[in-house]
Amino acid sequence: MQINGKMVIGQHAVLGMAGTVRAIDPSTGAEIEPAFGLASEAEVQQACALAESAFDIYRETTLEQRAVFLETIANGIMDLGPVLIDRAAQETGLPRARLEGERGRTMNQLRLFAKVVRDGRYLSATLDSALPDRAPPRPDLRLRKIALGPVAVFGASNFPLAFSVAGGDTASALAAGCPVVVKAHGAHLGTSELVAKVIQKAVADCALPEGVFSMLIGEGRHIGQSLVSNAAIKAVGFTGSRQGGVALMRTAAQRHEPIPVYAEMSSINPVFLLPGALANNSAALAQAFVDSLTMGAGQFCTNPGLVLALQGKPFQDFVDAAAHALHAKTAATMLTPGIHHAYTSGVVRLSEIDGVEMLAQGQHATSGCAAQASLALCDAKTFLNTPALQEEIFGPSSLLIMCSDIEQMQCIAEQIEGQLTVTVHATAADHALAKSLMPILERKAGRILFNGFPTGVEVSHAMVHGGPFPATSDSRSTSVGASAIDRFVRPVCYQEVPADLLPACLSDNNPLGLARVVDGDLLMPR
Amino acid sequence: MQINGKMVIGQHAVLGMAGTVRAIDPSTGAEIEPAFGLASEAEVQQACALAESAFDIYRETTLEQRAVFLETIANGIMDLGPVLIDRAAQETGLPRARLEGERGRTMNQLRLFAKVVRDGRYLSATLDSALPDRAPPRPDLRLRKIALGPVAVFGASNFPLAFSVAGGDTASALAAGCPVVVKAHGAHLGTSELVAKVIQKAVADCALPEGVFSMLIGEGRHIGQSLVSNAAIKAVGFTGSRQGGVALMRTAAQRHEPIPVYAEMSSINPVFLLPGALANNSAALAQAFVDSLTMGAGQFCTNPGLVLALQGKPFQDFVDAAAHALHAKTAATMLTPGIHHAYTSGVVRLSEIDGVEMLAQGQHATSGCAAQASLALCDAKTFLNTPALQEEIFGPSSLLIMCSDIEQMQCIAEQIEGQLTVTVHATAADHALAKSLMPILERKAGRILFNGFPTGVEVSHAMVHGGPFPATSDSRSTSVGASAIDRFVRPVCYQEVPADLLPACLSDNNPLGLARVVDGDLLMPR
Repeated sequence: MQINGKMVIGQHAVLGMAGTVRAIDPSTGAEIEPAFGLASEAEVQQACALAESAFDIYRETTLEQRAVFLETIANGIMDLGPVLIDRAAQETGLPRARLEGERGRTMNQLRLFAKVVRDGRYLSATLDSALPDRAPPRPDLRLRKIALGPVAVFGASNFPLAFSVAGGDTASALAAGCPVVVKAHGAHLGTSELVAKVIQKAVADCALPEGVFSMLIGEGRHIGQSLVSNAAIKAVGFTGSRQGGVALMRTAAQRHEPIPVYAEMSSINPVFLLPGALANNSAALAQAFVDSLTMGAGQFCTNPGLVLALQGKPFQDFVDAAAHALHAKTAATMLTPGIHHAYTSGVVRLSEIDGVEMLAQGQHATSGCAAQASLALCDAKTFLNTPALQEEIFGPSSLLIMCSDIEQMQCIAEQIEGQLTVTVHATAADHALAKSLMPILERKAGRILFNGFPTGVEVSHAMVHGGPFPATSDSRSTSVGASAIDRFVRPVCYQEVPADLLPACLSDNNPLGLARVVDGDLLMPR
Repeated sequence: MQINGKMVIGQHAVLGMAGTVRAIDPSTGAEIEPAFGLASEAEVQQACALAESAFDIYRETTLEQRAVFLETIANGIMDLGPVLIDRAAQETGLPRARLEGERGRTMNQLRLFAKVVRDGRYLSATLDSALPDRAPPRPDLRLRKIALGPVAVFGASNFPLAFSVAGGDTASALAAGCPVVVKAHGAHLGTSELVAKVIQKAVADCALPEGVFSMLIGEGRHIGQSLVSNAAIKAVGFTGSRQGGVALMRTAAQRHEPIPVYAEMSSINPVFLLPGALANNSAALAQAFVDSLTMGAGQFCTNPGLVLALQGKPFQDFVDAAAHALHAKTAATMLTPGIHHAYTSGVVRLSEIDGVEMLAQGQHATSGCAAQASLALCDAKTFLNTPALQEEIFGPSSLLIMCSDIEQMQCIAEQIEGQLTVTVHATAADHALAKSLMPILERKAGRILFNGFPTGVEVSHAMVHGGPFPATSDSRSTSVGASAIDRFVRPVCYQEVPADLLPACLSDNNPLGLARVVDGDLLMPR
């Protein structure tokens, strides 16, 4: 498949005329051909109008039709073969093995949502029988969830496949019955075009209305703001910086009709090393921590950016082992020059804060966008008095906090902002302390994990990739895992609606074979 | 039980010192004793701090404990006996029979949420087994929903019991495990105090932390804004005007940590009279419509404020019959002088719009706050060209729209703003037309009902009292019915959490006997 710098607007390939931009190879800084045309306002409107006009038809496709559509996209991505991996590797600097793994994850996501759609539990089908003899009579009432409307999706820089054009937000929105307009991330334009064409073809192959999917290319924030402001758009999925997410939240709140924004933004993913666990195996813990920290040049939203432990010999052992492990880590190419610049200046800023000591660094960078890993140290008091230490430094940088006692550790737990994850390392001897931390951690994070590291987010039914602000804009949802579909639906009640006008999921004879709540009881299909 | 003008702050009765206010009898305009003390900023902070400190304990009470707590409140309200009905009737001008019915509804709501809590389905318990042999291994993952945090509730004027201090928002938030701070509605201060004391006593009787419930009294918007701005508050439930709701949405969005606002605001509840239904029985339809319009002085958020039909003889018959029925309606006392003033000036404004004809009015008002019902008419073109005609006039006023053809009716359906309800009157002959309207109506409303009128909102599992903006601030939820609990929870994932630290609902042996999703399949308890 050829990359030709065009956007996907419904079934058309459109060359944007508002300027051009080229992808950049972050390992060399060189531009990559071809030039991509930038969208004008007219193309934003066109994509949104198409999405709006496709909505009523698309949202009422059968569960099976939507499941097959998602599977067709998954197969189409695989069918692209090495051309996709080649281009993604060139644009992102990520190793091929990682990208092949990410492609598998992307297909798994699409297939998980195909299963979620076929199961139909997300419809929340609920029936209350009429009670004509009650005073007053109760009417026949039936509830299902319907799709919210067209969704704007902003791809993430750090997952060019799994959280981009056909990533989690797109998959869950399409699964729910929402048309999607993607704004491609500038860090992987060619990758985006390849995947967008796969979805475009799947739309045609599945005989769906063309407006079900479009992908726009734009520089800076203008096109994004314009997309979120468009009246046809009814929800937003975003993965990126806190600043970018908050800007979209503001735009969405200021619309005539405010709409939900699901922004996954910023998290430093605290790791609590409880005394028993630390004493037990500080060296192995340190190695596993450094591996997690430096994986993928630290470019994960679940990167362990904060580690807390009690002072003492085991802590010192951990520090020494972590410093040693870090020294051995080669500098890996970051995704873009901008991300690299933000990382290096973030580390410099951190090192200049009073009370922060730079403990160790990884191997020196050998190319322009390579990131030298970094480990810093401060005491709990410094952390508690310095709000800036809670700011995410996107990349392989982490801060160790030395606490003088348990109370300080609890106090920090109370003071940290909302997080995607919080990790606890504990042996059986630590469980009393862990128990006292749990209520605090539950209030702070979307995922609490024990005796592991937070990088690696399973795509499954019980996953939550979410959490209180500023980790996300909406703690009531997740952007990874089966429940992500719930973000894009809303309930509608049908009162005394004639049988031939009822949606199939609410018909008396349960033709879809759904688990339904009937008169308050959950009934399994026969 | 004595009414003494005090607020409920935890287990204390506190006389606000920031001024005084008295309740008003709307049928006479006379003030009612005693004086109520107004909250200062300090009391807002005190109530919020208590709620925050109660949160971790309250949210981890057992399902049975919370169910019993809700039932204790229900019983306590009933035990107040006639003193509650007397005071509510005096403060609101509502008939005793209506208030007794509303008291029943209030208790039913509390009992419904007791059942919802006992069922535990709202926890969304989900388990994914560890797959240690997979590459990479899958960890053990378990999801449950936990309470969001303390909730601020703003009572509605028009349901002094069912949507006020112990109303739907309070019941669903308490059910979810959220402490509640209510701002009492100034239109029924004594009623509020009586009910607040019942909840306060239930908190003590159930041995819950005192911060689980507080009720503040404040004038104007200051106390409300201060409550919503308080960092301890994590969600807001509101029923009232669009202006009031939008102000709270803005405050909540501007917080350091933005929080969800569930505001039920404004709806004109369009009624589509399709040709077959209209021809079939225009006189009976007109009588039922006028009964719905004037019930409770039209002070329902589901009041039918807009009626659409095709021009012709059946429409004329409907108009004549409706006018006749309206003439017979006596003017009923409205809830407050302010509501009465807004109603009468709204009707005057409506009558002055070009193209709007006043068709009929009810009996003249005999007392200060009594509302003369009103019916106006315009053609579809006027409606389509006059956005002001979509503004809610709270009270017994409705606007008939005469459409010249089906296309005009569909065009209006497309142009109306978000609604709580949309009603269709249809015979079998109308089903083709109804089918063409359904997709539009689904996009516009939270509830679609056939061959009835929208007033009367059943409290059950399948009810949706919600809808797109401006009907509510968040179409993804309902404020009436079992699913209202979903507004006040968020998911948390537990990864490899040791068995003794897991919440009971996620334990291997399913001690709570919940329906749970295990490895993607919904399993019923044995």
